[in-house]
Amino acid sequence: MAKEDPPVKSPWGGRFKSALDPLVRQYTASLHVDRRLARVDLRGSRAHVRMLAKQGILSGEEAERILAGLVAVEAEIESGEFPYREELEDIHMNIETRLQELVGEVGKKIHTGRSRNDQVALDLRLFCLDTGRQWQALLLKLQTALRDRARRAGTDLFPGWTHLQAAQPIPWAHYLMSFMEMFWRDYRRLDSYAEMHSVCPLGAGALSGSTLPLDPAETARELGLNSSFRNSYDVVGDRDFILELLQIASQIMLHASRLAEDFVYMSSTPVGWIELPDGLCTGSSMMPQKKNPDVLELTRGKTALVLAHASGLATLLKGLPTSYNRDLQQDKEHLFPAVSTTADTLGILPLVIEGFEIRNETTAKALHEGFLMATDLAEYLVRRGVPFRSAHEKVGKLVGYCIAEGVRLEELKIARIKELIPECDDSVSEVLSVEGAFRHRQHKGSAGEQSVKEQLAFWDQWIDAQARG
Amino acid sequence: MAKEDPPVKSPWGGRFKSALDPLVRQYTASLHVDRRLARVDLRGSRAHVRMLAKQGILSGEEAERILAGLVAVEAEIESGEFPYREELEDIHMNIETRLQELVGEVGKKIHTGRSRNDQVALDLRLFCLDTGRQWQALLLKLQTALRDRARRAGTDLFPGWTHLQAAQPIPWAHYLMSFMEMFWRDYRRLDSYAEMHSVCPLGAGALSGSTLPLDPAETARELGLNSSFRNSYDVVGDRDFILELLQIASQIMLHASRLAEDFVYMSSTPVGWIELPDGLCTGSSMMPQKKNPDVLELTRGKTALVLAHASGLATLLKGLPTSYNRDLQQDKEHLFPAVSTTADTLGILPLVIEGFEIRNETTAKALHEGFLMATDLAEYLVRRGVPFRSAHEKVGKLVGYCIAEGVRLEELKIARIKELIPECDDSVSEVLSVEGAFRHRQHKGSAGEQSVKEQLAFWDQWIDAQARG
Amino acid sequence: MAKEDPPVKSPWGGRFKSALDPLVRQYTASLHVDRRLARVDLRGSRAHVRMLAKQGILSGEEAERILAGLVAVEAEIESGEFPYREELEDIHMNIETRLQELVGEVGKKIHTGRSRNDQVALDLRLFCLDTGRQWQALLLKLQTALRDRARRAGTDLFPGWTHLQAAQPIPWAHYLMSFMEMFWRDYRRLDSYAEMHSVCPLGAGALSGSTLPLDPAETARELGLNSSFRNSYDVVGDRDFILELLQIASQIMLHASRLAEDFVYMSSTPVGWIELPDGLCTGSSMMPQKKNPDVLELTRGKTALVLAHASGLATLLKGLPTSYNRDLQQDKEHLFPAVSTTADTLGILPLVIEGFEIRNETTAKALHEGFLMATDLAEYLVRRGVPFRSAHEKVGKLVGYCIAEGVRLEELKIARIKELIPECDDSVSEVLSVEGAFRHRQHKGSAGEQSVKEQLAFWDQWIDAQARG
Amino acid sequence: MAKEDPPVKSPWGGRFKSALDPLVRQYTASLHVDRRLARVDLRGSRAHVRMLAKQGILSGEEAERILAGLVAVEAEIESGEFPYREELEDIHMNIETRLQELVGEVGKKIHTGRSRNDQVALDLRLFCLDTGRQWQALLLKLQTALRDRARRAGTDLFPGWTHLQAAQPIPWAHYLMSFMEMFWRDYRRLDSYAEMHSVCPLGAGALSGSTLPLDPAETARELGLNSSFRNSYDVVGDRDFILELLQIASQIMLHASRLAEDFVYMSSTPVGWIELPDGLCTGSSMMPQKKNPDVLELTRGKTALVLAHASGLATLLKGLPTSYNRDLQQDKEHLFPAVSTTADTLGILPLVIEGFEIRNETTAKALHEGFLMATDLAEYLVRRGVPFRSAHEKVGKLVGYCIAEGVRLEELKIARIKELIPECDDSVSEVLSVEGAFRHRQHKGSAGEQSVKEQLAFWDQWIDAQARG
Repeated sequence: MAKEDPPVKSPWGGRFKSALDPLVRQYTASLHVDRRLARVDLRGSRAHVRMLAKQGILSGEEAERILAGLVAVEAEIESGEFPYREELEDIHMNIETRLQELVGEVGKKIHTGRSRNDQVALDLRLFCLDTGRQWQALLLKLQTALRDRARRAGTDLFPGWTHLQAAQPIPWAHYLMSFMEMFWRDYRRLDSYAEMHSVCPLGAGALSGSTLPLDPAETARELGLNSSFRNSYDVVGDRDFILELLQIASQIMLHASRLAEDFVYMSSTPVGWIELPDGLCTGSSMMPQKKNPDVLELTRGKTALVLAHASGLATLLKGLPTSYNRDLQQDKEHLFPAVSTTADTLGILPLVIEGFEIRNETTAKALHEGFLMATDLAEYLVRRGVPFRSAHEKVGKLVGYCIAEGVRLEELKIARIKELIPECDDSVSEVLSVEGAFRHRQHKGSAGEQSVKEQLAFWDQWIDAQARG
Repeated sequence: MAKEDPPVKSPWGGRFKSALDPLVRQYTASLHVDRRLARVDLRGSRAHVRMLAKQGILSGEEAERILAGLVAVEAEIESGEFPYREELEDIHMNIETRLQELVGEVGKKIHTGRSRNDQVALDLRLFCLDTGRQWQALLLKLQTALRDRARRAGTDLFPGWTHLQAAQPIPWAHYLMSFMEMFWRDYRRLDSYAEMHSVCPLGAGALSGSTLPLDPAETARELGLNSSFRNSYDVVGDRDFILELLQIASQIMLHASRLAEDFVYMSSTPVGWIELPDGLCTGSSMMPQKKNPDVLELTRGKTALVLAHASGLATLLKGLPTSYNRDLQQDKEHLFPAVSTTADTLGILPLVIEGFEIRNETTAKALHEGFLMATDLAEYLVRRGVPFRSAHEKVGKLVGYCIAEGVRLEELKIARIKELIPECDDSVSEVLSVEGAFRHRQHKGSAGEQSVKEQLAFWDQWIDAQARG
Repeated sequence: MAKEDPPVKSPWGGRFKSALDPLVRQYTASLHVDRRLARVDLRGSRAHVRMLAKQGILSGEEAERILAGLVAVEAEIESGEFPYREELEDIHMNIETRLQELVGEVGKKIHTGRSRNDQVALDLRLFCLDTGRQWQALLLKLQTALRDRARRAGTDLFPGWTHLQAAQPIPWAHYLMSFMEMFWRDYRRLDSYAEMHSVCPLGAGALSGSTLPLDPAETARELGLNSSFRNSYDVVGDRDFILELLQIASQIMLHASRLAEDFVYMSSTPVGWIELPDGLCTGSSMMPQKKNPDVLELTRGKTALVLAHASGLATLLKGLPTSYNRDLQQDKEHLFPAVSTTADTLGILPLVIEGFEIRNETTAKALHEGFLMATDLAEYLVRRGVPFRSAHEKVGKLVGYCIAEGVRLEELKIARIKELIPECDDSVSEVLSVEGAFRHRQHKGSAGEQSVKEQLAFWDQWIDAQARG
Repeated sequence: MAKEDPPVKSPWGGRFKSALDPLVRQYTASLHVDRRLARVDLRGSRAHVRMLAKQGILSGEEAERILAGLVAVEAEIESGEFPYREELEDIHMNIETRLQELVGEVGKKIHTGRSRNDQVALDLRLFCLDTGRQWQALLLKLQTALRDRARRAGTDLFPGWTHLQAAQPIPWAHYLMSFMEMFWRDYRRLDSYAEMHSVCPLGAGALSGSTLPLDPAETARELGLNSSFRNSYDVVGDRDFILELLQIASQIMLHASRLAEDFVYMSSTPVGWIELPDGLCTGSSMMPQKKNPDVLELTRGKTALVLAHASGLATLLKGLPTSYNRDLQQDKEHLFPAVSTTADTLGILPLVIEGFEIRNETTAKALHEGFLMATDLAEYLVRRGVPFRSAHEKVGKLVGYCIAEGVRLEELKIARIKELIPECDDSVSEVLSVEGAFRHRQHKGSAGEQSVKEQLAFWDQWIDAQARG
């Protein structure tokens, strides 16, 4: 903090007798954060100026000169030559001041009929709508990676679990496509999101609009947004579009974190069903043999950050008076890290999906542990007329017998099974093989062969449709 | 906790040698919570049985007997005579067991091709979809109350603030309709929600579907849901529909909490712009004169509860392995209180909106404090060719002058104003009256007269359209 | 909700013209929650009455009659015969009203010099201090179970991990005592907690104390609290003691959740290092073979609930004006479930610790996978003069060689090792055996033999000291 | 991200065949965050090297050369010349690598008997302990400002509220010292904190300590910490000291946020009891008259950030397996912003306390609104034998009468009061003056004159004692 700075005249300082305390300037500064909004701010300003000109509030020539100035400012920002000044508070005042330096007196007209309140509301909204589209593009790449990996997995099975206890054989393809369902829901929420929040707040001013003959609908059109605001008081204090974006980010990250948890588990030394590529792992500074699934652990860890920011923004908004309060400046402190973290994570997951290897020799062994075929056996009994609850009980006891004897279900002699469950006959052998689980499930959505094919076909179509836009 | 209970045979207990430890039974019990799902559970079971019959898995007669049993169970539940048994873990096992008692052996067939995993997933989904519709009905009542109150407020103004500092005059109608914007967004999110999550999980079984010839699409049709699941593995572990509902609840409660904060502020003794009816307030046990805005404070406080549960559910899900884990039982601990609190709050707000009185004598005074017309004066200068940034500076200094002199803007002689800001002429008087703010704002969405009329017309139409369905 | 109830006269209703709206009464009611405070409320009232008598504000006889009435009220509450009335808002008004019914006019004197604000502040504080002591007792039982199980584990080892990747052999005793460290920190925080918050708020009244000659220090003495309040305004709005208790609960539950995560992992089918007793597990409604670690999953899941309430209380308090606001009624909605959940979890963990079995045949195999001795080998090279970073590199390459060859470190011929790392000689064999890891670690705190013994001795002493009090 | 970078050899890369994917390097990088740990890392390394030398693991000369190298590294860091390299992952590897460049081969010995796991655990712990001390210093300055301002406020009163409704007259001094209670609790928690977590983890290695003859107690002594770790497995994964620090930060910020909320309220236009200095306020870009309490709003808003990070860290830790997992790298993402925000806020609050002005002309009027003396009147009746609950009722009705008549209590003629409440006599006038409230409260802790004096004396003593250390 630069205590020695000469007092800077704030653009809003007309009625003030003393300058901001330097500690206060530092405490209230947001430039280091909100410079990320520079581009959308310029986009918004251009639209505003064009509307002002169309409405005759600026002359055509004034508008031209301001627009040229904005181009010059943008060039400075892109080239890194823009003179950012902390003492001008935020990116908006920095740009307005720089514009005045570049184009002179006419620059003082850019803020006509506008307040930082509606200006910031617009910038954030443009940023969020852009972000939603970017995430959709990343999700589409991830879906493609998952679909390809699912297809490549063919008929390979692993011992599906519930509660991390062996449950039933599951095709890797079915498993991988379960994540496609999750990311598909995320994608669709982003569709609804774009539809809901494509509203232009410019013209709402500080809270009540303007006495000048603005045309907010024109500004909205200029920006390609669906509509202008219907209530100025609401739109300057509305941050629902940030809240909802962070809520969607939470859901995305929760999906990613469950994938990460699974893969950390499946690649852990004693499980060993999958192997992660070296390029996704790091070693230990002390233990020479280590190869750690860092990317996945970080995905899990970064989920906590996004959840924290989503909940932090809600805490920020809770019990706030309506209209604009400076607390809202902090929305960006939650928005920006959550947005970056989500995009980074979506960007890294395709590497995981493409890169992991299935260790079939390990899963092959594991498929014969945990009595994975017990349910199919119970359903076999159902087909032979045993009420399900009784069938469940009988097979449960058979499993108890196997555990006591230290044998697997499929190692039992058919004769022994028939003895223990008289409703069985020789056909029982067909429900004791792991592959049977894949063949015998025939209804839609199941982990069976036909269902897997249908799902792949669906995703082919969906990905194509999205890619075409 | 009943340590002395005789060991109860669990329906799933075939392979178990020892019963649940009583402390464990208490720790894992969910019946006290999930009995709230009884009705949707029965609805789901009926659909399941009908599908089983259609597919020939149950005979028509078996289905009839089970359905009759379910009717009997429902009657017991409705009449309060259902014998709930903690030792049967949850509502699902309670109903299945009771069914068997009522209809005998055939009752053991109800769980054919079903697991608690898909059963619970269905029950919760039905509950959540019902909840969404209930909230929409409550929101519609609230919108109606707001619209009526806005219309009743006519042209009454109050000193609109930003940062709780006097800003510009705002019509009460415009202010009240700003909340309609918020609740409208909530309503629309619930539309998207219903569209997204109308999926039937029944048939997904434990995680992989069934080897029996189920028809999940038929079950979905029976239940009036849009589709059946596409991936069994996803659908048994999917709790996105709870997460999203709680996220929407968060947004609703944030809106309610901002309304509450405003009203607590505006009815606080030194502000006193509004008066709450006695019926919404309570007194103090010690201070005889007190009349406290408890309802509004509780609305603000209950918001914290809903936010906590939304964030709690996300924390619950974070890093959980896929498919079903018992952690998910806790979803209801977050869902149910959040749902009740949100519905209660939506139910109480119309009383606030209908009941509060505007104290015009107080606001009338307040409208003349805080230099509310300064912005209109600056825009007046803009219309006279002064660049806005300079106009802002000039008016800022004029305000500083007034503060030093201890006078209000409108108390200044016109001559004095012209002296201090030569760009003014006699017409300046028209922008110094508070009512001018209402007349001079003419663009869409502003706090001006025309905009308020348009908004009222919009809401009339919208409310009618929703009410017609 | 009982819309038909006749309007009830509130004890604070002197200035009110209309009764509470029934919907409002339901919305503001807290009796269903705060009846849990009945006992501490009575304890506080007794102390208050005794102080009033000592100060001559009540006569000795009045005090006697009120105290007798409080005994009668307590008897009704304990026996379940107390006539709870929702329409009297909360437990405090219920007790005061009932007292008046039982002892007549003198009962109207109990609230002399007291407000619900300081009364509730006291009740909550007594409840929280009691809770802290209860948790300490539960923690002590858990520590005892851990110490006993650690001792019983003897010299058994398992493949300790970092990142869930095999790292180094760890004695079960060392592992189990790592949890004792965590729970020890929890226990000590509760010591600081009791010290910090043993303050009596009674006498602070609504916010400013009383004009009657109260003696708050006397009330504190009566209640066995360390001191009375120093600032009435602070103490009526202070909820730090709830916040801190929930923060400690969060830490306790985080420790429990990490234990749960480990045990779910170690008992999962493909890992299988431990077996949980049947009494802690449940089965599946569909899959007859399942035995699921429900207790541990619920511990993990319930952690989310406690975290949510801790964060919810903070959200509740954030930005609240000072002194008492009705929002604070909601503190109990966070406190009570968090307290119960934490106590239940602490109560169940000893069953887990006492009941789990180590499956040595599985860990024995696992101890030979993952190159667990690589670090010891690198440190062997350090002892022979190789700089650690170079030793790490050399052993890393040796591990790479083993992976490529498909052999374990200890299967390599000594000659081969010497060839690949010339700094080795025959003595290298001693650092390749898993048991060596246990013998060769000799410094304090390490996973070596001596350290484990020292830790056991420390815990023997600590547990004894606490048990003696 | 620099995709074109040549593959960098990681210090732990012995067993790896392919380098980190550049996207992965970016995703896993922490250098931009953890360079904040450089100084504590060097402090820890120096202590480690000295211990190694004392134990004969390094020769005296080796230690000298390494220590000299560390001095050189520190000089580079302080001067800004240190060549940070993203590709070396983190600050620890950057420093180790740079040391090797500066001192050659002997630098490869610094990591002897150490892992990043215990190294990071130490660095974070030193950082947190330093932070606690820094906050205490800031708290002490704030307490001093509050004490001085309280003394300066003399006998000035304002209309104390509960529920933001006028309650009883409160001396500003009493009010200001209520915050001293809050910050005093924060200060004391930091004392307990320092006591609890002054433990040195160095020597714990990756998770199990070392086979080298380390002396962890010596390292602890070198660093001035109370003790070394008792259990290596616990200490490498323990983040309780971060969690607790953020929990304390939450409490501090909640206190600050309540102060902020009050001051925003009291300085809002229609209340106007205090005036904030220009140097703490900013204006509006559109409304020339505005002077907004930005600092206080930001304090409130920044509270949400700290709460979010405290809860985010808990979410991060929940359900994590024990020992080290890479998720823990994210602890710093929560710690650092929360630490900075808390320190900044503590630094800014004294400016608020010293700078705000009391507007006695406004409070003087307000003190006569809201029937502030009603409670004193009820207690007057108690002194005359009326049971409190009846006195409350009588005064309540009197207030109702005044409201209906549109008069204040003190405007009622004594005769009228006596008529309405026969228990009154002429002496009643003494309890109707606002100043009476200050004189008549005489017990400890009350808002009365004597209590305020005692509090000031207490704080004089306490501040002196802390300042002396």
